[in-house]
Amino acid sequence: MSKKIAVFVGSLRKESYNRKMAKALASHAPETLELEIIDIRGLPLYDQDLDDEGKPPASWTDFRKRVKPFDGVLFVTPEYNRSTPAVIKNAIDVGSRPYGKSVWDGKPGAVISVSPGAIGGFGANHHLRQSLVFLNIPTMQQPEAYIGNAANLFDERGNLANDSIEEFVTKFMQAFARWVDIHTSRQG
Amino acid sequence: MSKKIAVFVGSLRKESYNRKMAKALASHAPETLELEIIDIRGLPLYDQDLDDEGKPPASWTDFRKRVKPFDGVLFVTPEYNRSTPAVIKNAIDVGSRPYGKSVWDGKPGAVISVSPGAIGGFGANHHLRQSLVFLNIPTMQQPEAYIGNAANLFDERGNLANDSIEEFVTKFMQAFARWVDIHTSRQG
Amino acid sequence: MSKKIAVFVGSLRKESYNRKMAKALASHAPETLELEIIDIRGLPLYDQDLDDEGKPPASWTDFRKRVKPFDGVLFVTPEYNRSTPAVIKNAIDVGSRPYGKSVWDGKPGAVISVSPGAIGGFGANHHLRQSLVFLNIPTMQQPEAYIGNAANLFDERGNLANDSIEEFVTKFMQAFARWVDIHTSRQG
Amino acid sequence: MSKKIAVFVGSLRKESYNRKMAKALASHAPETLELEIIDIRGLPLYDQDLDDEGKPPASWTDFRKRVKPFDGVLFVTPEYNRSTPAVIKNAIDVGSRPYGKSVWDGKPGAVISVSPGAIGGFGANHHLRQSLVFLNIPTMQQPEAYIGNAANLFDERGNLANDSIEEFVTKFMQAFARWVDIHTSRQG
Repeated sequence: MSKKIAVFVGSLRKESYNRKMAKALASHAPETLELEIIDIRGLPLYDQDLDDEGKPPASWTDFRKRVKPFDGVLFVTPEYNRSTPAVIKNAIDVGSRPYGKSVWDGKPGAVISVSPGAIGGFGANHHLRQSLVFLNIPTMQQPEAYIGNAANLFDERGNLANDSIEEFVTKFMQAFARWVDIHTSRQG
Repeated sequence: MSKKIAVFVGSLRKESYNRKMAKALASHAPETLELEIIDIRGLPLYDQDLDDEGKPPASWTDFRKRVKPFDGVLFVTPEYNRSTPAVIKNAIDVGSRPYGKSVWDGKPGAVISVSPGAIGGFGANHHLRQSLVFLNIPTMQQPEAYIGNAANLFDERGNLANDSIEEFVTKFMQAFARWVDIHTSRQG
Repeated sequence: MSKKIAVFVGSLRKESYNRKMAKALASHAPETLELEIIDIRGLPLYDQDLDDEGKPPASWTDFRKRVKPFDGVLFVTPEYNRSTPAVIKNAIDVGSRPYGKSVWDGKPGAVISVSPGAIGGFGANHHLRQSLVFLNIPTMQQPEAYIGNAANLFDERGNLANDSIEEFVTKFMQAFARWVDIHTSRQG
Repeated sequence: MSKKIAVFVGSLRKESYNRKMAKALASHAPETLELEIIDIRGLPLYDQDLDDEGKPPASWTDFRKRVKPFDGVLFVTPEYNRSTPAVIKNAIDVGSRPYGKSVWDGKPGAVISVSPGAIGGFGANHHLRQSLVFLNIPTMQQPEAYIGNAANLFDERGNLANDSIEEFVTKFMQAFARWVDIHTSRQG
């Protein structure tokens, strides 16, 4: 039976390179993984009072219920101002609460950063990783994925534009499938 | 003439320790500084398409106009999941755009992190500092402010509860006044 | 058969809290783990020329040979100036070279930081974790170990001084034993 | 009168790109700055016992005396394993001690990272910056300098190989001269 992976994209742009990458990751995943992009646009900024007063927005509750059953998580993100975009950090914060009910706990994960510049979102990638320590998301170390010069990666239909990136994405997903397997088989 | 400092609070809770700290910083500032807390709750999550299409939300435009004239900036933030809360990162991202029109450029700044635990928001504090490099906000180094055990810092009216924290806050604001002075007088 | 864990201590002080902690971790480990502290004091600062010219110092060669057969690695470190001490970074750099012959690759690992102050070496801990991503050391996420107020942790003989820290250390080593098990059994 | 800047190079390789960059920075500095590369190869790994026992190595004492009178500091460093090389962290640690006698306090500084890969030492650059906060080194934010693809930057004599990098280096040093000026003129 395949493992289900929730995918979170750190950009809201329609033509987002990271969204295209998320789709490429889904279509290049081995059969043992099934990827699904989770919409995180509509989540109001986290405010603990709403949880404490027992009146969380319906979108938070829906998001938590939806993510909970997944076997693993994949974060695909640009870098904004040398760190993670608010939209993906907000999804992480909403999913981590209320206290003791985090949806993230124990799910194996990975991080990919894609950016137009040369640095490939290194800063966003590692800031996100720091959060994943606290959230107890065992995170794949290699291959690291700091993917720069994003404008050259996709053709006009949004598909991967050359063999080199296609090979990398395939290899990345194979490694992630093994990582998910290691971290879920013992908990069954 | 006093310098005007925009203050950004990284928590939306009504009883937020960081909001109380922001007020304490304002009331303990030397006469040469005038602090004003800027509301950042209502800013929609940053989506570049809205700027590119020339239809940014009014709240973004208002925020940018409002922050622009300030002489300096002060970030007062808790730590969520070992990093900056989305609400304050979103304000930073909104203010940094559209490309070439950042409201942050060149404004002297400082970061204070306040948390209930012992670590005092160290992770959030330094993640924020990484963004401030890119934004060209000359950032005060010392005194560092990782303020832990926040529950003991304030009395029932929200005022600073002991001499030790009061002394620190006073000293911090005096150092910040010098920092702002150094970084604004040459640009006049 | 027990798994062998190489332990690296980031302080050279005779009375180092981190050395005491390393010993406490060894004595509180479950029977499935056998810990051994590796001396890293005598390693000359890494200089790639010595490897490139085929004349690495004997201490580098010995270190690499010695670490290679271990099943896992444990880093126990103070924080110097908000980052990792040079002595432990140097050991990491020496072990990572020459290119393609890293001794670290694939070994499961964990990080503990111990400091006299309240923050518990958070900065050193996460800087080290960033290196472990590149080195492909799958790193245990929870429990995190930022251990502050180190002066109160040990009695005059260097043993753990109270039940609370003893319980934490025991729990930490049990979690690490599981982590090592998950990450080595598939490679047998 | 020109300001004196101590330059620290994070690589010991004879043909180090960072050493070449340090020389290029020196030769492209405005007349108001005088750069001098400080040798940090021979400093034994920091061990607090040697300071506490009043027997620091002569090389530590010499280093501290030598750096103390400079007006500013410049760190030029490669990235080793996604962080700062031990050699430059060791120099920082040695200079920061004994407690209360740091040679770094208040000196304006800047960080340049140079690497053969695309990412340009981003990880080393920001890890170093985190230390500079603690050390109270006011650090220039812009222009940031993550300089990748180092193999193409220098000609066979070690000089800058094209106009683009020459222009950047000149601009960087002009900005640094202003930064040093701002941060030293008030202390005279």
